[in-house]
Amino acid sequence: MSNVLISEVGPRDGLQNCKSIMPTALKLRWIEAAAKAGLREVEVGSFVNPKLLPQVADTAEVVAGARHIDGLEIAVLVPNIRGAKAAVESGAHKMTLPLSVSETHSIKNVNRTHPQMLDEARAIMALLAEIDADNRPHFEVSLSTLFGCTIEGTVSEKKIATLTEELTAIGVDEIGLSDTTGYANPVSVRQMISLTRSIAGDGKINGIHLHNTRGLGLANALAAFEEGLTTFDSSLGGLGGCPTAPGASGNIVTEDLVYMFEAMGVSTGVDIDGLLECRKIVEAALPDEELFGFIPEAGRPLGATY
Amino acid sequence: MSNVLISEVGPRDGLQNCKSIMPTALKLRWIEAAAKAGLREVEVGSFVNPKLLPQVADTAEVVAGARHIDGLEIAVLVPNIRGAKAAVESGAHKMTLPLSVSETHSIKNVNRTHPQMLDEARAIMALLAEIDADNRPHFEVSLSTLFGCTIEGTVSEKKIATLTEELTAIGVDEIGLSDTTGYANPVSVRQMISLTRSIAGDGKINGIHLHNTRGLGLANALAAFEEGLTTFDSSLGGLGGCPTAPGASGNIVTEDLVYMFEAMGVSTGVDIDGLLECRKIVEAALPDEELFGFIPEAGRPLGATY
Repeated sequence: MSNVLISEVGPRDGLQNCKSIMPTALKLRWIEAAAKAGLREVEVGSFVNPKLLPQVADTAEVVAGARHIDGLEIAVLVPNIRGAKAAVESGAHKMTLPLSVSETHSIKNVNRTHPQMLDEARAIMALLAEIDADNRPHFEVSLSTLFGCTIEGTVSEKKIATLTEELTAIGVDEIGLSDTTGYANPVSVRQMISLTRSIAGDGKINGIHLHNTRGLGLANALAAFEEGLTTFDSSLGGLGGCPTAPGASGNIVTEDLVYMFEAMGVSTGVDIDGLLECRKIVEAALPDEELFGFIPEAGRPLGATY
Repeated sequence: MSNVLISEVGPRDGLQNCKSIMPTALKLRWIEAAAKAGLREVEVGSFVNPKLLPQVADTAEVVAGARHIDGLEIAVLVPNIRGAKAAVESGAHKMTLPLSVSETHSIKNVNRTHPQMLDEARAIMALLAEIDADNRPHFEVSLSTLFGCTIEGTVSEKKIATLTEELTAIGVDEIGLSDTTGYANPVSVRQMISLTRSIAGDGKINGIHLHNTRGLGLANALAAFEEGLTTFDSSLGGLGGCPTAPGASGNIVTEDLVYMFEAMGVSTGVDIDGLLECRKIVEAALPDEELFGFIPEAGRPLGATY
């Protein structure tokens, strides 16, 4: 039994920021190795316009190849109802719609204003209402640029509160907290969890997506864990960023995040050696990409039992 | 008024791990720039055998050159009573004796067992008793390898408790907590603060020395801050390590640590732009050393007011 869920987003958030395109078969090898290492959720791609992000053009094939891996939840990103329909057809278990608190970023990222994105969320809820509960994917809306925007700067708490209220009224399954730009700090993490939970209720706010742009990724994860969050997005080797948020760099590193929790005695269900095997696959597949992380170099402390 | 004290240890812990020897005049330029950036304590060298660590052979000159910088506390490391005498003569404001909880590491590092090191601490207390209170340096004993040793592995809590009791009985001014090997995690940081404070009292345990070997440095600093510690060692660009602890790598990065606290609304009194000026001096002086840190590359968030 794990105390926290590590959601590997490398095949989506990582690869969409790489110049090269990873072949479908290699993505599946990575996802299989991730599952073998004990990861129980992997975000495998995005149902976006393949012309804009050719790196994830094979998302439907990847979902088809990965969804039967035992015990693995297959997550995808969807920018709108069209993507959500494709996600449902693919058989993905979870889909995430990004709702950027910075409306400027929302327009740049998905070409939609806040009212338009809330309409997309409503349309997705209507789509899901027509599907059997057993086959219906879990639907999360992620509040991106929640901690600030590289274009707008500070985002207002009032806007965050309003969007959280709207999403709660729409009835989405879960509201995610996303530090797209690496602007969060441990105090703002605690504040945002408290603010959004006070509106949406504890059960709707479980996960956080952190970037390590300013080196605070693990400190932020610690603060979020201590506030009671249980799902943490991260990417193997810290691959990632945001193509439409200038200066946004990689996600928190799965290897280091798992190490932090395991060292603290918090079970992740993930085996560090298994992650290092995964890393070899990705290193070989992406020779031009820099992989980050401390644990792959330093190893575990002498005498560690995890 | 600052909420925390950042103690810059780069000129000691950093330089002792560099291959090249920085000229005295450059060290003084660095220390002056550090003071100008708002740092109020700098560990400038060690009174050790200059044959073993030629990088810090000029410590007396560095202290003499730096001790009159307005508002700056000049700290040094001393391995024994001989070093302490030299520190007193130099006019340093603070001296730290490393007492390694791993006796194997203590012997390798300073060639002394635990009883011998406790004798050194007693001899230093006797030396200090002969000096006016006004001219007497502050005397800290730092419990190094407190979170584990790269040679011995896990260190026992019983040994930590016994050494803390002995140091409390000897009456040293302060007991420091030191993660020499980068083995700490947020839970063990909280445990060690609680354990040592329960024996020595809150007033004796104020500071922590963290390395970032496994990427948890800032998460550990956050945990220590939340437990009430107020002094944090760090080094510019994360220079540092331990020449006698295999695999121990750099300190937490001053630039990133200051950023974390300032972003959290915790005042450090340190100006990030001033640190970046310092960094230029060190970069130019040590062209063969890799400097670490996220903030020098990513900068502050758009709209940041610190």
